[in-house]
Amino acid sequence: MPASLSIFSIDDITAMPQRYRVAFINSLSGFKSANLVGTQNRAGNTNLSIVSSVFHLGASPALMGMIIRPDLSPRHTLDNIRDLGVYTLNHVNTDILERAHQTSARYDSDTSEFDATGLTPLWEACEAPFVQEASIRIGLVLREEKKLSINGTHLLIGEITHVHVPEDLVADDGYIDIEAAQTVTVSGLDSYHSTQRRCRLSYAKPGKALSKTP
Amino acid sequence: MPASLSIFSIDDITAMPQRYRVAFINSLSGFKSANLVGTQNRAGNTNLSIVSSVFHLGASPALMGMIIRPDLSPRHTLDNIRDLGVYTLNHVNTDILERAHQTSARYDSDTSEFDATGLTPLWEACEAPFVQEASIRIGLVLREEKKLSINGTHLLIGEITHVHVPEDLVADDGYIDIEAAQTVTVSGLDSYHSTQRRCRLSYAKPGKALSKTP
Repeated sequence: MPASLSIFSIDDITAMPQRYRVAFINSLSGFKSANLVGTQNRAGNTNLSIVSSVFHLGASPALMGMIIRPDLSPRHTLDNIRDLGVYTLNHVNTDILERAHQTSARYDSDTSEFDATGLTPLWEACEAPFVQEASIRIGLVLREEKKLSINGTHLLIGEITHVHVPEDLVADDGYIDIEAAQTVTVSGLDSYHSTQRRCRLSYAKPGKALSKTP
Repeated sequence: MPASLSIFSIDDITAMPQRYRVAFINSLSGFKSANLVGTQNRAGNTNLSIVSSVFHLGASPALMGMIIRPDLSPRHTLDNIRDLGVYTLNHVNTDILERAHQTSARYDSDTSEFDATGLTPLWEACEAPFVQEASIRIGLVLREEKKLSINGTHLLIGEITHVHVPEDLVADDGYIDIEAAQTVTVSGLDSYHSTQRRCRLSYAKPGKALSKTP
């Protein structure tokens, strides 16, 4: 063990002051996705909320998971998704990073975060608004909502119904170059990072050397 | 709409060749975490498997989610976690990137990916092996397993019981500088990226300008 290594037990974690623990534990899963969730309710009021809890769930059908904490900020998001059953996810990029983060402020229900932040709703074959300024945009329909009783969070499972992506970012094998789209990644609660590709690695097989492509 | 934008409908997605769709959909959630899951079974056979499906679930209690596809590679991982109820997550860093990716090869059950890749098991107050070469290591106990009937994947919920982290990477507010630990991030199935912090942003409030720290 290097002398500089800190080891924390479950008791150490439990004893951390709450804000400290939230920042510490939020850092541990690794880098996270950064998306803006676009919704509206039946009355036509739009909502926009940054989330770092979206994850890939499967390709056939094309599913994404998202964790929502009803006791925290994106309450309007959850209500709207339940209301119309649709939502959009829009990659946060370097150009809109600060406006995207600002959507996490607790605006009252009369205020659209689109108006408050100057991001532009885009209506395109989906009942929920996309974000014009995002280069990668996804429309989803809610398939399932599961309450996770262990901590009161909700897992929303959405099926992808629409994808907007710059044509030249889709490789021949289907890979989308989200780095070239300037998509950012999040660590902890509030740290935003650009990326630099190191390599793509070939499909791994026992006893076979990997090949790298840039 | 810029001329270069491609728009895909659900029918377009369904019609994609399977491998193409897998690469395409895997790119859409945004950047993903890169962790090595360390396990052993009751017979003492160890297993190590790279996953990009780990996500933060909550800080009180300290929970992480992980999606496992029993029909795909990390079958031994799932069996071992069920067997002993514990596992470790170890951040993939730039130094061990290729060895970490190599763990995704389909080794038979007699072969430990530790032996096959030259990564070193570290035994430290946990029944599952950590990865010595990782600078950030997490021990977890399985709290819940939920089968997601929508696509046959399994959601494993683990509670964090141990954390190893270099002392100088923990900020005064609890934030862990995973970029300084050279933790990598993944996009799609096989693309690995280093990161470059743009900023940390202050807690957002309506009508208040954000402040940035480097």
